[in-house]
Amino acid sequence: MSSIFTKIVEGEIPCYKIAENDKFLAFLDVNPLVEGHTLVIPKKEVDYIFDIEDSLLQEMMLFAKGVAKKIENVIPCNRIGVTVIGLEVPHAHIHLIPINNVDDMNFSKPKLSIDSEIMLEISTKIANA
Amino acid sequence: MSSIFTKIVEGEIPCYKIAENDKFLAFLDVNPLVEGHTLVIPKKEVDYIFDIEDSLLQEMMLFAKGVAKKIENVIPCNRIGVTVIGLEVPHAHIHLIPINNVDDMNFSKPKLSIDSEIMLEISTKIANA
Repeated sequence: MSSIFTKIVEGEIPCYKIAENDKFLAFLDVNPLVEGHTLVIPKKEVDYIFDIEDSLLQEMMLFAKGVAKKIENVIPCNRIGVTVIGLEVPHAHIHLIPINNVDDMNFSKPKLSIDSEIMLEISTKIANA
Repeated sequence: MSSIFTKIVEGEIPCYKIAENDKFLAFLDVNPLVEGHTLVIPKKEVDYIFDIEDSLLQEMMLFAKGVAKKIENVIPCNRIGVTVIGLEVPHAHIHLIPINNVDDMNFSKPKLSIDSEIMLEISTKIANA
């Protein structure tokens, strides 16, 4: 069965899109730790980040860098934190999180619930940054 | 002034070394969240991960992948989690953390204190993996 992220890639499930090319997609996390919390995924469904082939992993890191720069331009923050956990959805994804302190990256705390209008506004601003 | 990590690169401060080449160094975090928690740094002192030039960032990710595979071979875990925070030491570093659940990556919780003999044993095993 396709992962939920493959369903997003294929347009079966909608997303707040940030950036896309032929190999990668970036979109807002719908259960964000902070506003602007973004996921970067390879379109190819691979569970574990370190099972991604070398050249694709390298390209993914550069794609993530470009997305991080866009987020920085829109969301006030000290910098963009990076996390890959991967215990829930079996499709590798890099979390890009605009942070001001270490607790902004604490995945054990409750996630935010942000109105869809605001999510759309944030994603549009970042996409156009 | 040199960062504490540059002092480690230059051998002024000792470390439990995991791997090294001309551009990168990996060593055990002395304030680990779990046993085998490792840091990967570029020898070139750059504060923010996304200010690292593209080609070096790409090489760093592959170096980290190689280190992650070594850790997996030694430390029983579900997978290696990845985190870059960067709010404390102004020298970019990737945390590689052997995880079994999301709380293994919670930087808000107290760090472990592991005896130096055990740290040396862990680092030697991972380095030789």
